[in-house]
Amino acid sequence: MEITVIPSVNEARADDLINKTVLVIDVLRATSTMLTALAHGCRAIYPVETVLQARQLQQPGYVLGGERACKKIPGFDYGNSPFEYMDDRIAGKHLIITTTNGTRAIQKSSKACTVIAASLLNGKACAREAAALNKDIVILCSGTQDVFSFEDGICAGQLVGELQSLLKDRGTEWSVNDFGLSMLYAFQQVQSDITRALMNCSNGKRLCKLGFTDDVIYCSRLNLIQMAPVVRGGKLSAPLVDQLT
Amino acid sequence: MEITVIPSVNEARADDLINKTVLVIDVLRATSTMLTALAHGCRAIYPVETVLQARQLQQPGYVLGGERACKKIPGFDYGNSPFEYMDDRIAGKHLIITTTNGTRAIQKSSKACTVIAASLLNGKACAREAAALNKDIVILCSGTQDVFSFEDGICAGQLVGELQSLLKDRGTEWSVNDFGLSMLYAFQQVQSDITRALMNCSNGKRLCKLGFTDDVIYCSRLNLIQMAPVVRGGKLSAPLVDQLT
Repeated sequence: MEITVIPSVNEARADDLINKTVLVIDVLRATSTMLTALAHGCRAIYPVETVLQARQLQQPGYVLGGERACKKIPGFDYGNSPFEYMDDRIAGKHLIITTTNGTRAIQKSSKACTVIAASLLNGKACAREAAALNKDIVILCSGTQDVFSFEDGICAGQLVGELQSLLKDRGTEWSVNDFGLSMLYAFQQVQSDITRALMNCSNGKRLCKLGFTDDVIYCSRLNLIQMAPVVRGGKLSAPLVDQLT
Repeated sequence: MEITVIPSVNEARADDLINKTVLVIDVLRATSTMLTALAHGCRAIYPVETVLQARQLQQPGYVLGGERACKKIPGFDYGNSPFEYMDDRIAGKHLIITTTNGTRAIQKSSKACTVIAASLLNGKACAREAAALNKDIVILCSGTQDVFSFEDGICAGQLVGELQSLLKDRGTEWSVNDFGLSMLYAFQQVQSDITRALMNCSNGKRLCKLGFTDDVIYCSRLNLIQMAPVVRGGKLSAPLVDQLT
C-alpha cells in the first residue's frame, strides 16, 4: 500500500487522487471543528467555498457556520471554534460551513474514492478506516493560503504512524513518500507535548493572539473522538455509531 | 532574523532570494561531494547544468566530474561519489561538475547575497558562517526532480538547530517557517542514528541498491568537515583555511 503525504492543497493534483482514499487534514481548525459538531449529534455537514454559497444553501433545519481570517462571519449561527459546537443546539441539525483552507481541500479531493476528514482528535479512527478500505492512501494537508502548516504536517505524521502499525500487524507491505517519512519523525519528536508544539507554530501563535488558546489546546488532543467522518456527494457525516470517549 | 526552509528547487522563486544568505543542500550527493573535493585540496568547483556545458568549459588543469541517474558520465574523470575525491589527484585542480539537482539549486540562487553549499558533513560550519553574515537566511533543499528529498530536509533541520543555538547565544531574535520547524523536529528525532534514517529514505535506498552504501554512510556523518564553501561568480571555493577533522 502506498501512502503519499501532500504538504498543501495547491500541490495536490485532482487526477492523482482517483481511486485513492484521501485523508483531508485541517487541524486548526476546520476538520477538528466539523468532527466535534458530528460528535455532538450534528446530522450532516456541507462544506462550501464562499459565504454566498453558504447563504444560498440555507433552508429550515440548516444552520450556518464558518470563518474568515479566524473570525465568525456576520449573520452566521456559528464561527469556526470547536467549542461553539459542543452543546445540544447542533444535535440533529444540518450544518453548512465555509472555511478558507479545509473546505478547499475537501473539494479538491472530489475525484477520490473515499474522503475522510482527519485531525489529531480522530487520527487513530481515520487510520483504521483508511487501512480497512485497502486502497492507496493520500494524506492531504490543507495548509494555509497555499503554504504548508505545521499542525497539519504533525497530524499527517500521526496518521502515518498509526497506518504503519496497523499495516505491519496485518502483514501488508507499505511505503511512504519522503515528505510523509519526515512528518512521521516530526510527530514522534513532539508527541509527548503536542500542545506546546502547536502553540509555537504560526497558526497556533495567531489563534492564541486572537484569544483562541483553548481551541489550540483542544485541537492538539490525540484520539479524543473515535469517529472517521466520510464525505459523500459533498456531504460530511459520521458513517457509524461512534462515541465521544 | 528570518529563516525560511524551501522543500525543493521548483518551489524557490529567484526574486525571493535577493539580499538573503542561501544555504543550498544536496546531501545525496552533490554538496557532500563538492565539499569533500574542496576539503582534499580542490582549488575551485564550477557547477554546470549540462554535460555539454561541462565539456565546453574544459581546459588544461581542469577535470570533469558528475553524474546522470547516479552514474558517472562516459569520458568524465570523476563521478559523483565523494570517495572518488578523497585522494591527492584532486589537489590544486579546478573541477567542472554537473549533477542533476544540486547544480540547479545553486544556479537558482544566483540572486542571493551569499550562497553556501551545505550538507550534513558541514552543517555546523555553514550555520556559523550564515549567522555571521547577519542577513535573513533561506535554506534551499535541492530535492530530486522537483520533489522533496528526506535527506535534504534532515540537513535543513540540522541547520535550523545550529542556527537556533547560535542566535540564542548572541541574543538575536529569530523565526522559522512551519516547514523548517517540522524539519528541526524530524532531525532531532533521527539525530542519534542518521545513517539508518538515510538508508530508509528513497534516495538512500536507491543508492544502496546501486552499490553506493558507503556513500550514504559517509554523507550521513555530522560535522566531519569544518568548512563552508561559498559560491561566487558561479565558482565554488573554500573561503578560509579549513581543516578536515
